[in-house]
Amino acid sequence: MPIAEIILADINSFKAEDAAQNIGKGNVSWKQLDASNRDELITTLKDVDLVLGFLPPKFGFSLVENCIDAGKNLIDVSYMSENPLELHDEALKANMTVVPSCGLAPGLSNMFVGHAVAKLEQTQEVHIMVGGLPEKPVPPLNYVITWSPESLIDEYTCKARIVEDGKIIEVEALSGLEKIEFESVGKLEAFYTDGLRTLLHTVGKVKKMWEKTLRYPGHAEKIRLLRDLGFFEKEKVSVEGVLVAPRNLTSKLFEEKLSKPEVKDIVVLRVEVSGLESGQNKRYIYKLLDRYDDKSRVSAMARTTAYPAVVVAELLLKGAIREVGVIPPEILAMDEKLYKMITYELKKMRIKISEEVVEEY
Amino acid sequence: MPIAEIILADINSFKAEDAAQNIGKGNVSWKQLDASNRDELITTLKDVDLVLGFLPPKFGFSLVENCIDAGKNLIDVSYMSENPLELHDEALKANMTVVPSCGLAPGLSNMFVGHAVAKLEQTQEVHIMVGGLPEKPVPPLNYVITWSPESLIDEYTCKARIVEDGKIIEVEALSGLEKIEFESVGKLEAFYTDGLRTLLHTVGKVKKMWEKTLRYPGHAEKIRLLRDLGFFEKEKVSVEGVLVAPRNLTSKLFEEKLSKPEVKDIVVLRVEVSGLESGQNKRYIYKLLDRYDDKSRVSAMARTTAYPAVVVAELLLKGAIREVGVIPPEILAMDEKLYKMITYELKKMRIKISEEVVEEY
Repeated sequence: MPIAEIILADINSFKAEDAAQNIGKGNVSWKQLDASNRDELITTLKDVDLVLGFLPPKFGFSLVENCIDAGKNLIDVSYMSENPLELHDEALKANMTVVPSCGLAPGLSNMFVGHAVAKLEQTQEVHIMVGGLPEKPVPPLNYVITWSPESLIDEYTCKARIVEDGKIIEVEALSGLEKIEFESVGKLEAFYTDGLRTLLHTVGKVKKMWEKTLRYPGHAEKIRLLRDLGFFEKEKVSVEGVLVAPRNLTSKLFEEKLSKPEVKDIVVLRVEVSGLESGQNKRYIYKLLDRYDDKSRVSAMARTTAYPAVVVAELLLKGAIREVGVIPPEILAMDEKLYKMITYELKKMRIKISEEVVEEY
Repeated sequence: MPIAEIILADINSFKAEDAAQNIGKGNVSWKQLDASNRDELITTLKDVDLVLGFLPPKFGFSLVENCIDAGKNLIDVSYMSENPLELHDEALKANMTVVPSCGLAPGLSNMFVGHAVAKLEQTQEVHIMVGGLPEKPVPPLNYVITWSPESLIDEYTCKARIVEDGKIIEVEALSGLEKIEFESVGKLEAFYTDGLRTLLHTVGKVKKMWEKTLRYPGHAEKIRLLRDLGFFEKEKVSVEGVLVAPRNLTSKLFEEKLSKPEVKDIVVLRVEVSGLESGQNKRYIYKLLDRYDDKSRVSAMARTTAYPAVVVAELLLKGAIREVGVIPPEILAMDEKLYKMITYELKKMRIKISEEVVEEY
């Protein structure tokens, strides 16, 4: 089903126009739009069938609210500190569908978890490992920035919520450090980050559940150094008569020193879900390794974040998704038929997912 | 010979009073004095026999000039980017003595070099290794600040002048990294810093001459990370509408996070001078390990920086040093009798120096 018309909206009209032109083919127009202006947003939403949301954290939750008010289906990738599931009843009442956290992780990671959880009679452990990395380690941090430096620093400073012994607990960011060997990539390190989000509410009782972020070895120690020296602190300090938050300066330097558009990226994702199935211990393992696409010049991070949202949007538009309310990706993927449709569409976009089931004795 | 009277001067009257009271015994008074105000300085100097200079870098050279103008002998520890030897003729004319760089390194290090150079017929290599360290590595940098954070950052960013193949060359700060085992201290790392100063002019022809700074292992890599990420840059960047130099913020954070007055310090110094003596290859090795003094609560850094200056000042006052002009410590130490007097006095202050001569075949 070809999409009839796309309107690309951004607060910056140049960026909107530029992005619309980059898409090139099809019926793509653009619009200058301030998503924090409710009236402007509602007016724009009137004319569309479905919204794809890619907003900064502070506008994430209000986009969900506004789409419900406007009665428009929303597939969203925006990070938000609020819990979108709280809007489930309102979305139900409005008879519309919101799929929040529908990117890479949260997003694809949730789908894999949901898919496995639906097979198991009793889920015991959920392990998510995910990272966007340069193809090869790039000094000084063995990392390049493929998203916002502010969000990166958030990831390194916000406590992570994980499940331990069946209880939700908070752990320090960058803790739980371990080394892992990844096929075709090599040695990586992994540490807790706050990526479970809706899974904390949808998966039900599990013994253990966590998300860890993947980086090349040595990264976490360097980031810890910056944190311990105070470079991520939000509280302003007086420097030669002006007040400045160390975190904001660091963010600026990160943007300057770690943005290397010439460096090609990869995305690594591994989800392991173990539990009981017909009295048997089983472990479901999902793996994904995506690379920068030379032909379209689209990064692995952009591919694996945007394509899941696009695929779900298309399925919603053609009626394959019928559930209403706030439906996170793991719930969609609990439906085997829907999961197969999603992964089939992703495969067409050359996002390859390997699935494995291991029986454990 | 007891000193008759000490006047302690500082631009901050509270600091002057506090320091004077801390000395306690003897005839110690204090004075508020702005050393950058020439008239005020010259007026103060009129009444004294000898000046001990401990000023920030930017006032170092002008203190030498002003002491020459006032005809007052000066023993100085201040760092200065200018070359004090350029004032030798003026000091000669004024018939007074300036001993510049008379602290730890430059200072004691220069004395050891001078002492060995005087023995050798032909000096080939001069290696100086020096460091002020916490007693044990202290995270996150395995280091605590015992002097100004600005000077510390200078040390990590200024190119170092060394002699290589008989020529003075400039090398990157933090380069030349090597690991060294130190008796009673353990494994340390060493890297080039710009500490040769007057030695570049006084030692004469040598094949190789360098100073390296000592730190606990891992320090240099962490400092390099901060440098590579731009945290030592002087050029201001715009952060949320205000302009700030990353270096100044870093300086501030260093002061806050690395000042740990409760941590006891040590000072390590090793000087090796090799060359020919009576047709024989000889290596002179000087070692010093000093510790925080629990009784007087004086740090090893303060002890090894101030006591050499005090000892030389006393020798000058009692007429043991008769040379006039700008006489750096290495020149004093070329006189065996004077060197013995200096080290004897230092030994009374429990600064112990070990000397060793190795014949090399």
